[in-house]
Parts: sequence; C-alpha cells; structure tokens
Amino acid sequence: MKVAVLAPIAWRTPPRHYGPWEQVASTISEGLVGRGVDVTLFATLDSETAGALDGVCPRGYAEDPSLDGRVWEALHVAHALGRSGEFDLVHSHLDWLPLAFAASFAAPLVTTIHGFSDPRIVPAYARAASAYVSISDADRSPELDYVATVHHGVDPGGLPFSAAGGDDLVVLGRIHPDKGTAAAIDIARRAGRRLVICGIVQDERYFTERVLPHVDGKRVSYLGSVGPAARAEVLGSAAALLHPIAFDEPFGLAVVESMVCGTPVVTYPRGAMAEVVDEGVTGFLVDGPVAAAAAVGRAAALDRAACRAVALRRFSTERMITDYLAVYARVLGRPVG
Amino acid sequence: MKVAVLAPIAWRTPPRHYGPWEQVASTISEGLVGRGVDVTLFATLDSETAGALDGVCPRGYAEDPSLDGRVWEALHVAHALGRSGEFDLVHSHLDWLPLAFAASFAAPLVTTIHGFSDPRIVPAYARAASAYVSISDADRSPELDYVATVHHGVDPGGLPFSAAGGDDLVVLGRIHPDKGTAAAIDIARRAGRRLVICGIVQDERYFTERVLPHVDGKRVSYLGSVGPAARAEVLGSAAALLHPIAFDEPFGLAVVESMVCGTPVVTYPRGAMAEVVDEGVTGFLVDGPVAAAAAVGRAAALDRAACRAVALRRFSTERMITDYLAVYARVLGRPVG
Repeated sequence: MKVAVLAPIAWRTPPRHYGPWEQVASTISEGLVGRGVDVTLFATLDSETAGALDGVCPRGYAEDPSLDGRVWEALHVAHALGRSGEFDLVHSHLDWLPLAFAASFAAPLVTTIHGFSDPRIVPAYARAASAYVSISDADRSPELDYVATVHHGVDPGGLPFSAAGGDDLVVLGRIHPDKGTAAAIDIARRAGRRLVICGIVQDERYFTERVLPHVDGKRVSYLGSVGPAARAEVLGSAAALLHPIAFDEPFGLAVVESMVCGTPVVTYPRGAMAEVVDEGVTGFLVDGPVAAAAAVGRAAALDRAACRAVALRRFSTERMITDYLAVYARVLGRPVG
Repeated sequence: MKVAVLAPIAWRTPPRHYGPWEQVASTISEGLVGRGVDVTLFATLDSETAGALDGVCPRGYAEDPSLDGRVWEALHVAHALGRSGEFDLVHSHLDWLPLAFAASFAAPLVTTIHGFSDPRIVPAYARAASAYVSISDADRSPELDYVATVHHGVDPGGLPFSAAGGDDLVVLGRIHPDKGTAAAIDIARRAGRRLVICGIVQDERYFTERVLPHVDGKRVSYLGSVGPAARAEVLGSAAALLHPIAFDEPFGLAVVESMVCGTPVVTYPRGAMAEVVDEGVTGFLVDGPVAAAAAVGRAAALDRAACRAVALRRFSTERMITDYLAVYARVLGRPVG
C-alpha cells in the first residue's frame, strides 16, 4: 500500500522541540514504514523519515520569518495534490487547507483533525470529501461525521521508564494562558515543591507578567523549549506533571509522554483529559489549584511502573498504527497492511 | 470564447463602495460580455454581472466578520479550479492563492497582478504556470516574466463630464499613511482651499490622530466611504484631486476616475503616476506639499474637456478590453473576440 502523509510545515517533521502536529505526522509515518507500508512524507525539506521525503518548503515557516506561512502552505498542499494520484490514500495532518481542495485530490483523503483553531474554519470541513479522524471523543464537532477517534501514540523508545522519579513538579507545554503555566506555579507553591517549566513562549505578555516574575532558578525554574531527549529526562525525574489547562485541550501529548516515563499527571477535567488519564492509576483529575496541590502527594505515591504500563497499553505508537490501518481499510473498503 | 473571470471575495463584485480589485474584475467581465464573450464570473454570490455568476461565498468576507477570509478564499478558488476545464481561459484577479494551484487548472491561466502585498508572496508567482499582466510598468517585479502591461480602464458612463468643476480639492482613497490623507490636508491648507476627504478607514490610528482632528466640516470635510455615484459627483465638483501618495502605488484608479470627470490631478512622481498622469494635460507631478500647493492653481486652470478626452482615450473600458483580448489571443496562440 502506498500512503502519502501530509504534514504541516510550521516546523520540521519530526520537530526539533515544539510541533505536536508534525510530531504525530512523523510518528505515524515511521510507524507505517515499520509495518511495511510504502510511505511518502510531504513535509519541510529538512525533515527526516525512513520513508520517502517530498515537499517544496525548505524549512519550517515558524523557524524562518522570511517564509510566508500562507504562501508556502499553499505551495506545499498544491505539490502533494499534484502527486496524489500516485497513492492509495492521502493522510493529512494539515488543518483545513487541503480540505478546500479535497475534490481535486486523486486519492481518498483521510484527515486527522488536530484541533479547530477557530469555529470559522468549520465550513472548510463541512463541505469536503474527506474521512475525518478525531484525536479524542471530546474534540468532535457535532457538525461533522467521523470515521473513528484515534488517540495519539508515542514511541516508548524515546521515553525511558524512570522508576525513581523525583520530588519536583514539572509543567510542559507552550507558555500560554490556555496551558495554565501560572496556575502550575500556584499549585507547586501550595504543594511546597519545586517546579520546572518547559515550553516555547507563545504568549510573550503572559510569560513576562505571570510567569517570569516567579522564576528564581530555585523554587521555579524555566528551561525554555526542550527537545525530545531533554523532555524525557525532565519528565522522568519529576514526582508529577502539572497540567492545569484553561481550555478544552483536544488531546495533550505531554500528558501521555509523562505517563510513559512513569510520572503521573495532575490535571483538570477539561477537553480530552478524562479520556487520557486513568484516575488513580496514571494521575488525578481535580478542580482548581487547591485540589490540585492536595492531589500532588497522592499522585507522587502512585505505582510508577503501573502508570507506565497502562500508558503504554493505551498510547503506544503500535496501537495508534493498528488503529490507523483499520481506518485506512474502512476508507478503502478492503483489508490493508 | 468561454472565459472564467476569478474575482477576489473581500467585497462584492462590483463593490458597493471600496474594492478596486473587484471593481476591475467587474469592469473586465462586463466589457467582455459586451464584446460577445461567454463570461462566467466567479465572485461572491451577491455579486452582479451580465454574464453567468458562480461561486460559493455568500458575501464579501470584508463585509461579514463571521466569514474567515482565508477559508472562503480557498473554497472559492477550489470551486473555480473544479470548473476550469469548461473554459478556454481563466483570468484571475485573486492575488497569489490560485497560482499555488496553477498546475491543477484545466485551462490556461492569465493573472492580473494588482499588487504585491508582501515581497514574501513572490515565491507563489515565481513557480506558477500562469501568464502575468502588470497593471503598470512601474509595478513589474524584476523576478517575473510578463505577457503585457494593461492599464486599467473605467466606464465613462458612470463618470459624467463636469465642465464647471468647483473650487474645492478632494482626496479619495482608503485612509492610510500610504495614501497621504494627512498630506492632502496640509496641501489644501497651503493652497487656501477646502478639502473633501472620501474613503474607508483602513488605519484607525492614523485616522484618529492625523486626520480627524482637522475635520471641521468647513475647511476639511470627511464624507466616509462613498459609492460609485457619489464618488463621480464629488470628483466632478472639485477643482483638483490631491493624490500625495507615500508608496509606489501600482496604478491609482481614483486618479483615472477623476480625470475622466474632467478634474485634473496633483500627485507625486511615485509608482505608476508618471504613466497615468499626462503632465500639464490631466494634472501635475510634483515633489512635496509646498510644490503641490503651488500646483493646485495651475491644475485648476487646465482645460477640463481636454483632461477628460485624454483620460478617455487612454483609460476607457473599451481600450482595456481590447488590450485583454490581445493578451488572451497571445496566450491561446489564436485570434479571439
């Protein structure tokens, strides 16, 4: 089977540090190659894959201000469209633009909807000839039909088990009110533990006003954006991941990465969290910072090996690939893989 | 001959008040219909044409904040692309997005480049299978090949000759530093004449800080955005149009409209102005507000009938249509019309 995986081009695939959509596109591409699928990854030209790489954009537009993201994204999608007849199926991770041109694709289109940036983009989905995959049941739009929900999977090879963990807490994600970085600082203070913050600054003002004043390098540290290896190190050496989100997060890749390292999660019951976290096994869902601080001790006392085991069973690359091969089979109306 | 005219969808075609790209797409569509060409206008669905109208977007996204312009523009272009095989030629006025997908169009593409909003969009032009028309020699990019320069034309029917003119000065265009609205206020004051300002506010801060404090309804009036009929009235009753631009304007439709009404123009020698204005016949090109104020009297003394006659010869719809039919013939490699 020949599959084209259409990755976004904000970042390299896989991303060097931040880029969850590119990360998932990479994990799927490499996982499919591992199952013997003939994969062409359409991504930035500095991307890396065990499959074939194609594209037009030299590097991620979020990494190079001289590139106009709208222009290069259109050129990228148009290039993949021009080659679409060479594949059994095109699997897009690139937001709504390919959907506008779905009727011109010469192969069936499967779109993983990684999130809706704005309700005003829904018209692009409502009209398109594409099968849709939601990344959580929570993120489904009532206006669309879906072929399946496929939770993300992560590669356990890059996320070694840390049996010991540590005493500190960690919050990992883009620095933005949605992600609750400031709330995590409050929770750590109430819990009497040190906090390590990792992530790109997406909201400069929030970072300057709500986060930076608390960073002293002792009680609160900010490590910046950390790449995959450092991320696994930071997650594995923590007592718990704090994930006090202030929005309905469609999935939460950092949560799964933490659980796979053996580090349980303390989060709020919003978005996909109730689907991702197994209460009392891989973490706790609580309401507000006081309850979160109280839950930190219980989370730190959880069985880290059991946390990893459940996370691996539910969120491994292999489970995700099996799910997607089932989606492909359903869309093509024949067995695949 | 069957021609698809692809209009932008920021505004209705023709626009109710502002929307120069949509205006030119309309003028060309109606002019082609008048020459017996089978025209399908792809535009907002509230557009008006003597040809066939098609599209997907209910109304201009600049007129309805509930519409995401990027999404609807993509759906609009994709819809026209899907029908492109029904035409001998597709004539696009829609910026760079159709160019990204040019290879998928099933008919030759002619693109009138109405301007480059950003140098970072040039990659979309450099790769595309489209013939390019510049709207002035001044606006040509050295990186592109062009099949022709075709100056815009206007419909004289909507721009009646005003033999008398008047004493006031007028500045007409979007309120933005590029258009020199504040400079026009200065010039009018120096010339000792009243000034009438027309146009949509594109830069709120510039309007509030540099324009509005001078608007007293006596020496300086602001009429807001005026539709075509009122525009002809305002232009025709002026002594001269002030057009003190602070950017290299690709064409300058208001300048031509004014000249056709018999009202000469005082402008700066930037962008296309030297191509559009016949010095000493339809206006004057001067450097700076002092010289502009001094030129106002000379402009007011010009022969208004001669101004209109030259403007009509050079910038009528019929001349523009003849030019575009020659472009189509060249692109198709056979006589048309």
